Amino acid sequence: MLYRIACLILFVASFKPVAAQQEDSLFIRKLFNEVMSNANAYENLRFLCKKVGPRLSGSTNAAKAVVETSRMLTEAGAERVYEQPCMVPHWVRGGKESGYVILAGGEKHMLKLCALGNAVGTPKSGIKAQVVEVTSMKQISELGEKNIKGKIVFLNIPMNPTYLYTFKAYGESGVARWDGPSQAAKYGAIGTMVRSLASNNDDYPHTGVMSYNDSFPKIPAIAISTNDAQWLSAQLKLSNNVSVWFKTSCEMLADVASANVIAEIKGSEFPDQIITVGGHLDSWDLAEGAHDDGTGCMQSIEVLRTMKAMGYKPKRTIRIVLFMNEENGSRGEEAYFNAAKKNNEKHLFALESDAGGFSPSGFGTDMTKDQFTKVLTWKHYFEDYDINKFSNDGSGSDIGSLKSLGTALSELRPDSQRYFDVHHAVTDVFENVSRRELNLGAFAMAAFVYLVDQYGF
Amino acid sequence: MLYRIACLILFVASFKPVAAQQEDSLFIRKLFNEVMSNANAYENLRFLCKKVGPRLSGSTNAAKAVVETSRMLTEAGAERVYEQPCMVPHWVRGGKESGYVILAGGEKHMLKLCALGNAVGTPKSGIKAQVVEVTSMKQISELGEKNIKGKIVFLNIPMNPTYLYTFKAYGESGVARWDGPSQAAKYGAIGTMVRSLASNNDDYPHTGVMSYNDSFPKIPAIAISTNDAQWLSAQLKLSNNVSVWFKTSCEMLADVASANVIAEIKGSEFPDQIITVGGHLDSWDLAEGAHDDGTGCMQSIEVLRTMKAMGYKPKRTIRIVLFMNEENGSRGEEAYFNAAKKNNEKHLFALESDAGGFSPSGFGTDMTKDQFTKVLTWKHYFEDYDINKFSNDGSGSDIGSLKSLGTALSELRPDSQRYFDVHHAVTDVFENVSRRELNLGAFAMAAFVYLVDQYGF
Repeated sequence: MLYRIACLILFVASFKPVAAQQEDSLFIRKLFNEVMSNANAYENLRFLCKKVGPRLSGSTNAAKAVVETSRMLTEAGAERVYEQPCMVPHWVRGGKESGYVILAGGEKHMLKLCALGNAVGTPKSGIKAQVVEVTSMKQISELGEKNIKGKIVFLNIPMNPTYLYTFKAYGESGVARWDGPSQAAKYGAIGTMVRSLASNNDDYPHTGVMSYNDSFPKIPAIAISTNDAQWLSAQLKLSNNVSVWFKTSCEMLADVASANVIAEIKGSEFPDQIITVGGHLDSWDLAEGAHDDGTGCMQSIEVLRTMKAMGYKPKRTIRIVLFMNEENGSRGEEAYFNAAKKNNEKHLFALESDAGGFSPSGFGTDMTKDQFTKVLTWKHYFEDYDINKFSNDGSGSDIGSLKSLGTALSELRPDSQRYFDVHHAVTDVFENVSRRELNLGAFAMAAFVYLVDQYGF
Repeated sequence: MLYRIACLILFVASFKPVAAQQEDSLFIRKLFNEVMSNANAYENLRFLCKKVGPRLSGSTNAAKAVVETSRMLTEAGAERVYEQPCMVPHWVRGGKESGYVILAGGEKHMLKLCALGNAVGTPKSGIKAQVVEVTSMKQISELGEKNIKGKIVFLNIPMNPTYLYTFKAYGESGVARWDGPSQAAKYGAIGTMVRSLASNNDDYPHTGVMSYNDSFPKIPAIAISTNDAQWLSAQLKLSNNVSVWFKTSCEMLADVASANVIAEIKGSEFPDQIITVGGHLDSWDLAEGAHDDGTGCMQSIEVLRTMKAMGYKPKRTIRIVLFMNEENGSRGEEAYFNAAKKNNEKHLFALESDAGGFSPSGFGTDMTKDQFTKVLTWKHYFEDYDINKFSNDGSGSDIGSLKSLGTALSELRPDSQRYFDVHHAVTDVFENVSRRELNLGAFAMAAFVYLVDQYGF
C-alpha cells in the first residue's frame, strides 16, 4: 500500500515536468522545421555581402550596414528597432600596397601581402631592409637589438595543425600579429611581416587587428600569405642575405560617429529581464565579412524572425544586438555595456555567434556552476540535432563585459575546421557559406534562447 | 589474503589490455598528428581535379585517372599496384543541351538544364510538349494516360529540408530521378524534367544516373535547376497552358575497357585476411568530381601513405581499391566482387568513403551484432577527435556485394549539410574542399583500419 502511495506521489510530482518536457521538445522541433524551411538568413546574408559588402568601422559601407540591417530587423517583425550611438576608430587601408623580396643574387619575388589593421603606413617610398626570421615570440628577445636593429622582422609562426579546435591554434600563433610589431620595435626593427594566421597553404594574405605598445616606436606591419611565408623561410635557409621592400598607405583617421543596431521583442512576464542575442556588424575590408561576422548577425535576426513567425510571445525581453567595431576597437561593446550599467538593466543571458556560419556542434558558456548545471539539464533537447556539446569555457568577445553585471554568457560553437581558411581574407565571401549550415546555427541559437526565456537562471 | 590475491589476479589480467589501450591511444594520436601535419591528400586531390578533371566511365579522363592514381599509390609507398580490368558503359552527353519554357502568352524562359546520366537523347529538333507537374511519384499514376499522354512530365519533388541527415531526403526524392522517366513513359509521356536533387535554391542543374524499365519506351530525361523548378511551378499555378522545348544529344555507346586501381600492403601475420579501403574513381562530367568522389579516393590513398610514413607493418593485408563506374553501372564493384569470390579471398573488413570530404562525425556500419559490439569498444579512441558516432545502419555502395562473403562493412560519415549543394553539379570542384576536413576523414579511416588490423573481428 505504502509502495502504491509512493508511486502515486512520484507520478503526480513528475507529471508536470514530463508534460512540460514533451511540450518543449515539440516546440523545439517546430522551431527546427520553421528555420530549416523558411529562414531568411541566407538571403539576408546575400544582401549584406553583395549589396553592402565590406564594412570596416567608420566606412560608408558600415553606415549602410546599419541602415540595411535595421530594415531587416523591422521586416523580421521586431517591435522596436533603434540605433545605439558610439564613436568608432576610422582606419583606412589607403592606396595600393605592394612589396617584394630581394634574394642574395638580386632576384625579386613579389609578395602577396596586406597591411595589418590599425597599423601605420610606410613612408611614400616604402621601407627596405634585411629580413630576420623568428619562429617564436621568445626568439625576438633572444636575438635582441644586435640582430634586429634596422631590420624587418619576419614572424613565421604557423598555426599548429594538430589542434582539433582551430581557435586554440589561432590563440597561440595570434600573438605574433597583435603584439609582434611592438616586440620587434622594442629591439629596433623598422618593420614587421607576419605569416598569415591561416589554416591552409595558399596565396591569400589574412589581415586582422594589431596593437601598438605606446612605449615603443610604431612601425609598419603587414601579413604575407602562407605560401609566401613557406617560400621565404626556405630561401632564408639558403642565405641570410635576403632583403624585403614593402609599401603600405594605411592610416588611422579621426573617430567617426557610428552605432550598434538593436531590436527588441518585449517580455510578457518579466520585461525587465533582458536576453541579448547578437553578432558584430563591422567586417574587414578585404572581402564581404561573410563568416566574420555576417553569419552571426543574420542568425541573430533569424532568431527574432522565427519567434515572430511562430507567434511565440517571450516571457522575457529578447534583444537582438548587432555590435559595431568588434574588429578593431570594441567600441560597440563598450557603448552597450555602459548603457546597460547606466540604466541599471537586468541582463539575464547573452549569446553571441562570431565563430562562422558552419555546422554547429554546441555552445561554449561563461557562467556559474549552478547556471551551467541547469543548462546541462537542457542538453537532451539538442541531441536530435547533433548540437549537444556544451562546455563552460568561454563566450563571445562582444558580450564579455556583461559578465561584471552577473550575466550568464554563451557563444555558438560551429565546426571550426574551415574558419581560418577564409578568416580576414579575400575568400570570406557569401559563396563560402552553406545555407543549411547557417540555418542550423540560427536554429540552435533560437532553441537555447527559448529555453532560457522559459526557465530563466 | 584472499582479497589481495584476487586483486593481484585482477591486476595481472587487466595489465595487458590497459597497456595495450594506452599504446593504441598513443598510436592513434600519432596517426592524427601525421595526417594533420603531412598528409598529401589535398595536393593529390588538386591534381586529380585540375589536371585530370571530370572522369566519367569510358572517357579519356577516366583512363588518365587510372594512370595518375596508380602513380599516387606508388608514391605513397604501396608494395604492389595493379589494375583490375572491367568493361564499363560509355554514356556521353554529346553536343549542346538547351531548352526553354513557353508561357501561355508566348513568352520564352531559358532553362538551366542537363541530361540525366544514361538517358537517351532527343531527336535533333528536340522535343516540345505541354508540361504536367507532379509533386509525388504517386501522382503520376493518379493523373494517368488521360493527362500525361504526349506531354512532358515535370517531377517537382524537393528534398525535405527538415531532415537533419540530407541523404535521407536524397533517398526519398531521388526516386523521381531514377524511376521518374519510366513511370511517366508508362502513361505515354514523351519526356521528363526533374527538379535537381539539391539542398539549395540556385541555378545549377544536378545530373545523376537514371534507369529505364525495359517494359516502357525510353524517353529523354533532364534535370532543371531548383530555381527554375520553383519558377516553373509558380507559373503553372497561374496557367496550365505552359509548354517546354528541350534538346539533348546524349547517347549510350558501346562498352569500353577500364579498370579498378588496386594497391596493397601485405599483412605480416595474416596476409590472407583482407581489409579493403576505398572510394570511387569515376565522376560525373559536369565538374571535377571533387567531393564525389575524389575526396574518398585521396583519403584512401592517404591511409596507405600515412601507415608507410609511420613505418607501420599491418598484421593483415591492407588493400586500397579505387572503384571504377560507381556512378552509372557499378561494373568496378562487380569485377572486384567476382574476383574475390573466384579467388576464394577472405575479406575481413571493407571501408568506403563516398559521402564527401567534409568534417567526419563517425561511421555507418553493416555488420553482425557481435562485430558491432566489438566496434563500440573502440569508440572511446575517437572521442578526442569528435568522430565518435557509430551506427549499424548502412555502408558504401561499392562494397555492398562483399556482404555475401561475410565481410564486415563500413562507410565514413562526414557532415552531410553541404553535400547536396555541390553533388553532381558544376560546383563540385576542388575549391569547395577544405584541407583540414579532408584530412580529418583520412585520419578517421586510418584509425579504424588500424584497430581492425590489430584486433580483427
